[in-house]
Amino acid sequence: MENSMFSSESEVRDYECDMQGIVNNSVYQNYLEHARHLFLRSKGIDFAEITEMGIYFIVTRIEIDYKFPLRPGNRFRVDVRMERVTRVRFAFFQEITCLDNEKLCIKAKVMGAAMNPEGRPIYPHVLEKLFPDLS
Amino acid sequence: MENSMFSSESEVRDYECDMQGIVNNSVYQNYLEHARHLFLRSKGIDFAEITEMGIYFIVTRIEIDYKFPLRPGNRFRVDVRMERVTRVRFAFFQEITCLDNEKLCIKAKVMGAAMNPEGRPIYPHVLEKLFPDLS
Amino acid sequence: MENSMFSSESEVRDYECDMQGIVNNSVYQNYLEHARHLFLRSKGIDFAEITEMGIYFIVTRIEIDYKFPLRPGNRFRVDVRMERVTRVRFAFFQEITCLDNEKLCIKAKVMGAAMNPEGRPIYPHVLEKLFPDLS
Amino acid sequence: MENSMFSSESEVRDYECDMQGIVNNSVYQNYLEHARHLFLRSKGIDFAEITEMGIYFIVTRIEIDYKFPLRPGNRFRVDVRMERVTRVRFAFFQEITCLDNEKLCIKAKVMGAAMNPEGRPIYPHVLEKLFPDLS
Repeated sequence: MENSMFSSESEVRDYECDMQGIVNNSVYQNYLEHARHLFLRSKGIDFAEITEMGIYFIVTRIEIDYKFPLRPGNRFRVDVRMERVTRVRFAFFQEITCLDNEKLCIKAKVMGAAMNPEGRPIYPHVLEKLFPDLS
Repeated sequence: MENSMFSSESEVRDYECDMQGIVNNSVYQNYLEHARHLFLRSKGIDFAEITEMGIYFIVTRIEIDYKFPLRPGNRFRVDVRMERVTRVRFAFFQEITCLDNEKLCIKAKVMGAAMNPEGRPIYPHVLEKLFPDLS
Repeated sequence: MENSMFSSESEVRDYECDMQGIVNNSVYQNYLEHARHLFLRSKGIDFAEITEMGIYFIVTRIEIDYKFPLRPGNRFRVDVRMERVTRVRFAFFQEITCLDNEKLCIKAKVMGAAMNPEGRPIYPHVLEKLFPDLS
Repeated sequence: MENSMFSSESEVRDYECDMQGIVNNSVYQNYLEHARHLFLRSKGIDFAEITEMGIYFIVTRIEIDYKFPLRPGNRFRVDVRMERVTRVRFAFFQEITCLDNEKLCIKAKVMGAAMNPEGRPIYPHVLEKLFPDLS
């Protein structure tokens, strides 16, 4: 992915495949979420920790283009790019590529925000770890 | 939902909730898929049967707006409207509403097509059960 | 089930089926857990609420006999019986029966205990709602 | 694990954790299944391939002891030992160990058999790849 800021690799697990013999559509969201959390951790932001602190990173909108299905045994790479949209809103651009045939499988845009447990938008200072120049 | 063609009701299961104490983002795709399959079955199209026949209904794109989270114990309704886009492409418009507070939780648009197991677009005659006037 | 104390009904969702075209083994644990939580709720014990109170009901051992698989479209019933084993330990006996053919699909024994968030066994007074005579 | 024949390593994904902040009980079955399939593949037996050939490896019984929970961020190892019980029945002994604290988390025994798609027990010759001396 152009300007990828982070990438992680994994493999399809058979139980993630459905009766069509391919990875079920909802599972790609699991892959995408896991890669975002690994990206955040690589920047010093632990999702479980900030959740316990009362900072809820939430997804407000997701757009996924399904280009090519992953199959049992496939290995894949998830790329992540994060952009700040406003002071309290951010966007992740993500791609999943099959490592066995280098085909682009998934292209996604994930919009997010930070909330407190009551659902009010907050500006979490941990974000400065991600965008030090924009704090 | 305006012009809803089908609706089904269900309840949140605790294991579907994550460490934030709300339904995990990917789970709504499960809810949406299940409602689409129930809708198809109500029209005489059994997803498992047509899959065995070699007709693969696939999702090509999904857009989900996350408006309000479902929580443990919540009951919800999924509404479905289906539209034909071209001869071989169709769109589902779906909403998930929490029955405990009547709040709109999820608004989704799901684009689909039919393929054979080799991944080639096909026009499945079962679609005529859905759009008898457009066959 | 003999001496069933609670039963709930549901239906297989297609995404719960794997490439063998039957419900994946791990999904039955989801069905069993959900039925236990519905049983507890029917007795006035809300799992999410007691978790927030710091009472963690945990499973210490599970035994599942897989008798007959559930398939896409099947409706099923989950039966639950609960027994107190010691002051702080309890057991659930559960069965899943396919409503389309009345076949016994799953027979399970689930051993449980209550812990505080630090993992120490506790005796939660909410249990008295379940076993009023044994408190 | 004593006499481990295969081991694989992985990490907890946050979406696998439930509202208790630990990996949900059913998810360990996913971990165990994935490790069994990796083990089989290491022996030249591809689960998806043999399923397509009409050989269904099924689980007939599972026993899981939950010793210690895995948490967000934990890395873990799954060990596998396989034993032949009769000509057509086999058993897997499995353990999941947290790599961050070397604690034993899960101890499991999984009984299996091979069936044809109609549910009749079969003796699949692929098993000879696993037990060459017993064929």
